[in-house]
Amino acid sequence: MDKKAPIGIFDSGVGGLTVAREIIRQIPEERIVYFGDTARLPYGSKSKDNIIRYSRQIIRFLRTKDVKAIVIACNTASAYALETVSKESDIPIIGVINAGARAAAAATRNGKIGVIGTRGTIQSGIYTKVLQELKPSVQVTGKACPLFVPLVEEGLLHDSVTDEIASRYLSDLKGKYIDTLVLGCTHYPLLRSTLRRLLGESVTLVNPAYETAIELRELLLEQGLLHEKRSEDESQEDKYQFFVSDLAEQFTSFATAILPNEVKKTKQIDIETY
Amino acid sequence: MDKKAPIGIFDSGVGGLTVAREIIRQIPEERIVYFGDTARLPYGSKSKDNIIRYSRQIIRFLRTKDVKAIVIACNTASAYALETVSKESDIPIIGVINAGARAAAAATRNGKIGVIGTRGTIQSGIYTKVLQELKPSVQVTGKACPLFVPLVEEGLLHDSVTDEIASRYLSDLKGKYIDTLVLGCTHYPLLRSTLRRLLGESVTLVNPAYETAIELRELLLEQGLLHEKRSEDESQEDKYQFFVSDLAEQFTSFATAILPNEVKKTKQIDIETY
Repeated sequence: MDKKAPIGIFDSGVGGLTVAREIIRQIPEERIVYFGDTARLPYGSKSKDNIIRYSRQIIRFLRTKDVKAIVIACNTASAYALETVSKESDIPIIGVINAGARAAAAATRNGKIGVIGTRGTIQSGIYTKVLQELKPSVQVTGKACPLFVPLVEEGLLHDSVTDEIASRYLSDLKGKYIDTLVLGCTHYPLLRSTLRRLLGESVTLVNPAYETAIELRELLLEQGLLHEKRSEDESQEDKYQFFVSDLAEQFTSFATAILPNEVKKTKQIDIETY
Repeated sequence: MDKKAPIGIFDSGVGGLTVAREIIRQIPEERIVYFGDTARLPYGSKSKDNIIRYSRQIIRFLRTKDVKAIVIACNTASAYALETVSKESDIPIIGVINAGARAAAAATRNGKIGVIGTRGTIQSGIYTKVLQELKPSVQVTGKACPLFVPLVEEGLLHDSVTDEIASRYLSDLKGKYIDTLVLGCTHYPLLRSTLRRLLGESVTLVNPAYETAIELRELLLEQGLLHEKRSEDESQEDKYQFFVSDLAEQFTSFATAILPNEVKKTKQIDIETY
């Protein structure tokens, strides 16, 4: 496998850009091919079978770009599809859940961990399963927060309505005296300041995007796949490539707002043909 | 064409059930095949090209059930796809927009009409176009209300958060002194009491679902396709058939809550193969 090959990253839409951002920060030498499934988003309210089917199609697409590894930058797809698709693959595929769970298990002092996510992620029970494998004594409380994604996508990051909804969602978790909260959806780090204010300084907020970038770096190093040298002759546009299944222009402006560099072009593809 | 053939109705999900409900009330003799595209919902934030492609696939599916007419029970799909797909079809296809616009044009006294809908419906400008064709003097103000669908789907029909969001969305329209408001998304009739309270009794609320059932009845009568006789020997289950592209069970319970009769079974199909 070529060390210079890019890393494939996918998500249902723009949320996974928070994962791409951490990867760009932590391993800036790596090339990236990002796919956002904007024609079929959101994944949080779809079934396991469909999420597996969508993930397989996207992996087939990313393989046409000769990626050396794939990051499922979506908690719902990591919860439902990672186990299945990683067994089928001869290149490494990682999700965002294991890294997030490891950081939470390490951070908790009282053993009470909260997890917030989409209905799909919470119903799957995946965080509870992984956390209890890592540390059998932990008590995990999950809470689905289905209105957070639409509120973030409407830009209501600092708003009385978001405060009200967040305080309703968090009240169950506060009653359980959690000292660690996993932000189990890639949109949620954008609500960090609201969550911080409502929960207070004593609760550690775990951002799986950050932890996943660390895990990816270790994995590439371990498998001799890390691209150590920065390619000076390569333009930003060749280095980071973006593909979506719908509304490419809208994605481009959102991506430019989230990523450290301007995104010039996003290509639309028909993912259903893969 | 067989008068006893069913009517095909489709929507991105459950919203179109408000249209099916009006059709069942007004022409109870008719058989119905309903399709909800739950694997690809919501339509309100997707592009015109994709909505046309989805609509063509669904129409091909409904034709396998030998429907005699099709109702696009979704404002976004009516806005983006009706013109294209009705030209391609040898059976009548109607949307929800024309009937809603006609009722609004008839209802307004001061000529100032508001339209609320998804971003797709409002950006298409279709209501303004159709309303001004019907009555060139009207002033139409559109307002996208992207948080209404998630709020309705979370069941927050009577809630302080919904009140707050609704009063923000309506403030522009109130400033324009509208006397008629088109509920341009099939989920919105479920917020009727909130909208009524915020707008007062002087504003007429137009529900395109109701108007569409009237239009369908007239169309069937005109084309000699109305099924006059109630089939006594037919079970409810054969008369009303429900299909979705994902999460059939969840759909069944929602449908039972909205429709006058219990829905016993919803079948899941793979719409991408049509």
